[in-house]
Amino acid sequence: VAGAVYVGVIGSSVADSDLEALAEGVGRELAEAGAIVVCGGLGGVMAAASRGASEGGGVTIGLLPGTDRAEGNEWLSIALPTGLGELRNGLIVRAADVLIAVGGEWGTLSEIALAVRASKTVVGLGRLPVGPDRADAIVSASDPRDAVEKALAVVAA
Amino acid sequence: VAGAVYVGVIGSSVADSDLEALAEGVGRELAEAGAIVVCGGLGGVMAAASRGASEGGGVTIGLLPGTDRAEGNEWLSIALPTGLGELRNGLIVRAADVLIAVGGEWGTLSEIALAVRASKTVVGLGRLPVGPDRADAIVSASDPRDAVEKALAVVAA
Amino acid sequence: VAGAVYVGVIGSSVADSDLEALAEGVGRELAEAGAIVVCGGLGGVMAAASRGASEGGGVTIGLLPGTDRAEGNEWLSIALPTGLGELRNGLIVRAADVLIAVGGEWGTLSEIALAVRASKTVVGLGRLPVGPDRADAIVSASDPRDAVEKALAVVAA
Amino acid sequence: VAGAVYVGVIGSSVADSDLEALAEGVGRELAEAGAIVVCGGLGGVMAAASRGASEGGGVTIGLLPGTDRAEGNEWLSIALPTGLGELRNGLIVRAADVLIAVGGEWGTLSEIALAVRASKTVVGLGRLPVGPDRADAIVSASDPRDAVEKALAVVAA
Repeated sequence: VAGAVYVGVIGSSVADSDLEALAEGVGRELAEAGAIVVCGGLGGVMAAASRGASEGGGVTIGLLPGTDRAEGNEWLSIALPTGLGELRNGLIVRAADVLIAVGGEWGTLSEIALAVRASKTVVGLGRLPVGPDRADAIVSASDPRDAVEKALAVVAA
Repeated sequence: VAGAVYVGVIGSSVADSDLEALAEGVGRELAEAGAIVVCGGLGGVMAAASRGASEGGGVTIGLLPGTDRAEGNEWLSIALPTGLGELRNGLIVRAADVLIAVGGEWGTLSEIALAVRASKTVVGLGRLPVGPDRADAIVSASDPRDAVEKALAVVAA
Repeated sequence: VAGAVYVGVIGSSVADSDLEALAEGVGRELAEAGAIVVCGGLGGVMAAASRGASEGGGVTIGLLPGTDRAEGNEWLSIALPTGLGELRNGLIVRAADVLIAVGGEWGTLSEIALAVRASKTVVGLGRLPVGPDRADAIVSASDPRDAVEKALAVVAA
Repeated sequence: VAGAVYVGVIGSSVADSDLEALAEGVGRELAEAGAIVVCGGLGGVMAAASRGASEGGGVTIGLLPGTDRAEGNEWLSIALPTGLGELRNGLIVRAADVLIAVGGEWGTLSEIALAVRASKTVVGLGRLPVGPDRADAIVSASDPRDAVEKALAVVAA
């Protein structure tokens, strides 16, 4: 898809229904905007974003930690086993033009940190794992639509 | 694409017109069979296979060695920068269910070797970089259609 | 060195003299305890820890982000280019039995997060990049000797 | 060890006594020349080279495919788990200034191919997995001393 924007959607593999609703909304809005979702391919926020993108007619790529494609969630368009374990977090950052974090724990924090190191913008929804001292590095969003608009605006700039 | 087969298409980034014709045919046949092409995303055999898949209405994923999406060829559906250099060769092997080698030099040889190590079948077209002592490890094919049929038969088995 | 403990020492490549003094002390104490230092091999905290280990007669391994051994600091015993960029942060975590963070910014934060994900203890000195909500995951230390004692105690347990 | 040469020693994890004798000789000669051995850290040729280096008072670094340091052979000076599986083959190539192949099968072939791609010289002993068409890319050696002399000469040049 020439010219498409790739947006990493990151967050915990275990998420409550509020975070899942946000992630699903982000996936749907990204799909409707024609963006490609890149995620870790597993459950929780990843699955919810994939489901949302699928509902919106979009494409989601899952970069899986293991070597078995079957570990990917059912809403992925493309499931790619990497066998890198948690080091695949860095690949998500490299594959993305910009990232949207929906809540998250330590794995998400590693992705946010690597994204900042790679000078890629992270837009945040929900309670993020970043401390108050570092919150300035994140672009705060109020809802899924706002998060997607802000993420796409960064790439268009 | 639930249930789709992922076929790695590997070969040199510099190829003559005969090899490019073979690679384009492989890409087209894979697309017509509904398989997803995974490749290194650059020129030569990779570009020809991507072009063929595009002509056939299929999907090609390029796993790029660098960190710049723009280095991908113009026929990729999905271009993913990895920043791993030649270590991305191993990711192509991990992402593929089976591989088709179209000619190739040292980079292709590294992929064939890693594929054998990962117990994944490699179907070969054209002059491969494998010595005669090891040629038994490759399933030889006579033309693109034969290569695709043999690759998909392995996965279906 | 059979039975040796490998301790990752992490922190910024740019550090003030207070942090460098702490890191140098950590390196020296680790060397005197017979532990092997694993670090990112560059400047700042990494160089100070390497210098301290060298002064103490110990061994420091630098896992470098680039492909040029010459980018390693002059106090490394072993300098290993990885060519993985920031993804080498995850290799430091995998190579270490336990980690000591001396201050740090986003790169260090990615290492702390990956360490927690890998269930490896992180002992902290100085102002860490972790927010107050997550500080419980870090074992706080008062000075280099305390940090080393706490790190080695975790591995011995 | 400032200024030391790092020599990758590659070969099968299962080797007959002739190959093991060659690998042990290579390790010993490298140690006596003050070079550092880098290998995959497991058995067969890797263990024999590590043993030889240990006998010669030298240093061997094992880059392990798994995440458990205990999988390393007993003669390693430094054992580093990478968790990368066969992708650690590429790290051995990156960490080495030059490589010596002692026999070998598909894993070794992947390393030779990646070394050629990285423009690093491979010196060969025993029956190599490279076909006759590509044998010109390897510097042939007659015995361990010859292999080590040729490898070190390449780096000194």
